[in-house]
Amino acid sequence: MDRFIEKHEVGVSAIGGMGEIGKNTYAIQYRDEIIIIDAGVKFPGDNILGIDYIIPDYAYIEKNIKKIKALIITHGHEDHIGGIPFLLKNVSLPIYGGPLAIGLIKSKLEEHNLLSKAEFHSINEDTILKFKHLTIEFHNTTHSIPDAFGVIIRTPQGIIVHTGDFKFDFTPVGEPANLYKMAKVGEEGVLCLLSDSTNSERNEFTMSEKEVGNTIEDILRTVKHRIIFATFASNVFRVKQVVEACIKYDRKIAIFGRSMEKAIKIGTDLGYISAPKDTFVNAKNLKQVDPNKLLILCTGTQGEELAALTRIAHGTHKKITIMPTDTVVFASSAIPGNALSINKNIDLLSKLGANVITSSINNVHTSGHAAKEEQKLMFRLIKPKYFMPIHGEYRMQVLHAKTAIECDVKEENTFIMKNGEILALTKNSARIVDGKIEAGDIYVDGLGIGDIGSVVIKDRKELSENGVFAISVVVDIKNKVLLAKPDIIARGFSQSQESKDILESCKEIIEESIVEQLQNEDWNIYNVRQSIIENTTKYLNDIIGSTPVIIPTIIEA
Amino acid sequence: MDRFIEKHEVGVSAIGGMGEIGKNTYAIQYRDEIIIIDAGVKFPGDNILGIDYIIPDYAYIEKNIKKIKALIITHGHEDHIGGIPFLLKNVSLPIYGGPLAIGLIKSKLEEHNLLSKAEFHSINEDTILKFKHLTIEFHNTTHSIPDAFGVIIRTPQGIIVHTGDFKFDFTPVGEPANLYKMAKVGEEGVLCLLSDSTNSERNEFTMSEKEVGNTIEDILRTVKHRIIFATFASNVFRVKQVVEACIKYDRKIAIFGRSMEKAIKIGTDLGYISAPKDTFVNAKNLKQVDPNKLLILCTGTQGEELAALTRIAHGTHKKITIMPTDTVVFASSAIPGNALSINKNIDLLSKLGANVITSSINNVHTSGHAAKEEQKLMFRLIKPKYFMPIHGEYRMQVLHAKTAIECDVKEENTFIMKNGEILALTKNSARIVDGKIEAGDIYVDGLGIGDIGSVVIKDRKELSENGVFAISVVVDIKNKVLLAKPDIIARGFSQSQESKDILESCKEIIEESIVEQLQNEDWNIYNVRQSIIENTTKYLNDIIGSTPVIIPTIIEA
Repeated sequence: MDRFIEKHEVGVSAIGGMGEIGKNTYAIQYRDEIIIIDAGVKFPGDNILGIDYIIPDYAYIEKNIKKIKALIITHGHEDHIGGIPFLLKNVSLPIYGGPLAIGLIKSKLEEHNLLSKAEFHSINEDTILKFKHLTIEFHNTTHSIPDAFGVIIRTPQGIIVHTGDFKFDFTPVGEPANLYKMAKVGEEGVLCLLSDSTNSERNEFTMSEKEVGNTIEDILRTVKHRIIFATFASNVFRVKQVVEACIKYDRKIAIFGRSMEKAIKIGTDLGYISAPKDTFVNAKNLKQVDPNKLLILCTGTQGEELAALTRIAHGTHKKITIMPTDTVVFASSAIPGNALSINKNIDLLSKLGANVITSSINNVHTSGHAAKEEQKLMFRLIKPKYFMPIHGEYRMQVLHAKTAIECDVKEENTFIMKNGEILALTKNSARIVDGKIEAGDIYVDGLGIGDIGSVVIKDRKELSENGVFAISVVVDIKNKVLLAKPDIIARGFSQSQESKDILESCKEIIEESIVEQLQNEDWNIYNVRQSIIENTTKYLNDIIGSTPVIIPTIIEA
Repeated sequence: MDRFIEKHEVGVSAIGGMGEIGKNTYAIQYRDEIIIIDAGVKFPGDNILGIDYIIPDYAYIEKNIKKIKALIITHGHEDHIGGIPFLLKNVSLPIYGGPLAIGLIKSKLEEHNLLSKAEFHSINEDTILKFKHLTIEFHNTTHSIPDAFGVIIRTPQGIIVHTGDFKFDFTPVGEPANLYKMAKVGEEGVLCLLSDSTNSERNEFTMSEKEVGNTIEDILRTVKHRIIFATFASNVFRVKQVVEACIKYDRKIAIFGRSMEKAIKIGTDLGYISAPKDTFVNAKNLKQVDPNKLLILCTGTQGEELAALTRIAHGTHKKITIMPTDTVVFASSAIPGNALSINKNIDLLSKLGANVITSSINNVHTSGHAAKEEQKLMFRLIKPKYFMPIHGEYRMQVLHAKTAIECDVKEENTFIMKNGEILALTKNSARIVDGKIEAGDIYVDGLGIGDIGSVVIKDRKELSENGVFAISVVVDIKNKVLLAKPDIIARGFSQSQESKDILESCKEIIEESIVEQLQNEDWNIYNVRQSIIENTTKYLNDIIGSTPVIIPTIIEA
């Protein structure tokens, strides 16, 4: 960043998190000091095939590792901590976060055998981190997980406030937000605010998590038979409220889903969830419990293919078969892109006779993010001079900037940024500099990082749309002769008679291409491959207007 | 109050405003110092007949006038200032308020020739009033009128905060609320909060007045013909937005309604409303303006019998006749009890062909009072130890107390009070004392105060329900002889043949009663009257189950 900003300027940039929900990773640099806030992953939508995660390009962090004083974690959600195992593959870092975030990160790093690469520092609201130029403070904020913080960064040019993910929940399940600390820093004078844009499109005020608790209690009190309760494992407050309602209404809990098991284990270890040991039933002993006294707590609200709930809906779960007396609760909202899979599961469950309760039926879910009125409250507390909407897709950033202007931030002082862009700040100025830091997408497939570039993604997209032609030809190199007619194995391509004719024509075209190439004095395998691809593509484009992915294999005999 | 509280205790009481919307008048006493907050009137509902206002009994203030250091006015609405002319009839007081409130009070006192009875002190957010024991500070708050304040009272036992009327409007037409000052006093530690309960029954967040402004602009931009715009004159922000939209979309404004004229005059004098002089058209010159370029701004949204809008709807207004191209806007909500009259006006206007826009059609009105989420925000900012819901009917007070408990005020620390009851506070204790200050209702009919007691109201109610029998009899006192048969004039009593028969029977009963009484040695007029009333009442109760008001007149000849 220092290549692009003046020495006295503070640089603020997103390595991830701008124009998207996910892979939140923000960098604040002043001279030789850099603070990184969060290191999240992004979960790809349905249209990025076979990808498990997307992480940002960590080149900036890796190159500047000596300047990086801290990785500050605002809270323990995947889009804020999920990138850490990948980041730590190449570098070591001191990590500062609340107890729950650290618990979740440690558990993640253990799985990756990377626990030794990080140095952990537990923070709370009173923590003050003093570096040479930068001082970091925290304030409690309300979100859908305990230990969520806003970050106050004091720089020589002024105060930068990063809200973290927040809503204003005045009747939270955990600690209330520290309105005084926010108002106080606002009164001191805040140079720049970075604020959560997720719910910029929603008017009004986000419902309190406690209302969800009341609804959960209502369900537990009135439902007489088995309950299957699906929610996000990451919403530890929600999970806590389900557990407490089960204790109150005398139900045992069986947990399905690895992330749910993990959330409950860590939540219990750290004291956020407390329950007598016999509250939980091992999945193996399910039959020993009266189903009318059982709640099955699971993930899978997003219609994920392998989730327990999806298998239950499809009747393919080994241990759980839907009974017509079952009540299935989706304590969730649909993440855009997942609606079809979710609706299918709801349909299947309903057909099996289950009573399905979703958030469109009652208050069984609420968002963890600030709607418009709450975003306004943040502006009125923090009163920033400059504003940068973060944590949101482009339209959300735009709406959030509009709201800022309504709350007296000058229009020219709002900056809708892209990943990698740098805002250079002084007491009296802010400008987007000419130059960017690295901030591309890295695709993670399974546990492999970056094996998958955007070319792979493009291929997968093409494969999914047009299928593949695997072409093999055998060539006698010495004599420059085609030893056998080309063979084509087509997948994802029409099986009609017409298509078979097309395949035959392709074979002829390929044969001609090869024969022509072989006559060439300086022929080579590369050129043969290219001519096969080009001629086949041209022919197919003419005939059917699209082209499968063409993979020629030339076997030299 | 000092008769009931200990010397070291701070007493807090409502002379009016508890269990009702109106006549807000609160007293805070410590030893020989008393602060009065507001002095409002209440507008009687439909069921208190012929009454213009209700004010509280000012006996406490009058008796303790030497101890009263200040009458603090939170804002210039009638339910907070309307009692002042009646209060000043008997006492003189120093009045502290914002410029607009003082402007409105002065205008009111001029009408009553009482301007010399008060000493005015203009306050702003930075004002600090130091008395011997009590210190008063203020914070800007957002309500439906400029210059609205919350009051911070520092007592030797701790801080008491009186919110005034408020909502949290983060995009207000005027100044934003001072969240920092509220949070700061909350952080210092607040002993007791008195907070506005009006909208305790509403969930969510009250819409910003600026949204109403957008709607007004939409109407002005799209409507091509004459507009009749009715709203509360007291909402100076609303009036300001209408005036500004008219200037923007080039419409002249004709004002109808005395309170609207007054609001615009004072609002303009004080700079809250600014408009070129030729924006306004005198009602006399109405015909000189193209109706399609005219907006008639008036009161009468509550179906008030004498309001211009009601007369327009009934076709009895001298200057304005509804045209089928007219658009009539009700920028208001129905005050409970007025719905029938309002609906009748809307029906009449619609029948005359006007396009009627109400707040159920679009966002042309919003409340000035905090809904539940805003009440919660107040608790989270102020963090009071003790809580007293004020400014609301009983059920609103109860819900507000519930919300307080949800926001971590201890249940035993919430006090739902009645007018006259006293809360005695120390640093560590709060108790409702055994004893009350005077806080009855005084009825004001026209300009007369207190002529009308509750007996009068009871009579009016009876008259309205059962009618009246005016009975006259002529008696020769000397000779103890009835000189003429009794005469009965009945009003509000059935006119059927049966009823006439009943009247005849009554006459006979009355005659018998008189004859019987006259035979008595020590007869007197009083006894004659009583026997007429008793016997008639008994008879009527037996026959028809109810009794008109019976007024016997005994003429002595």
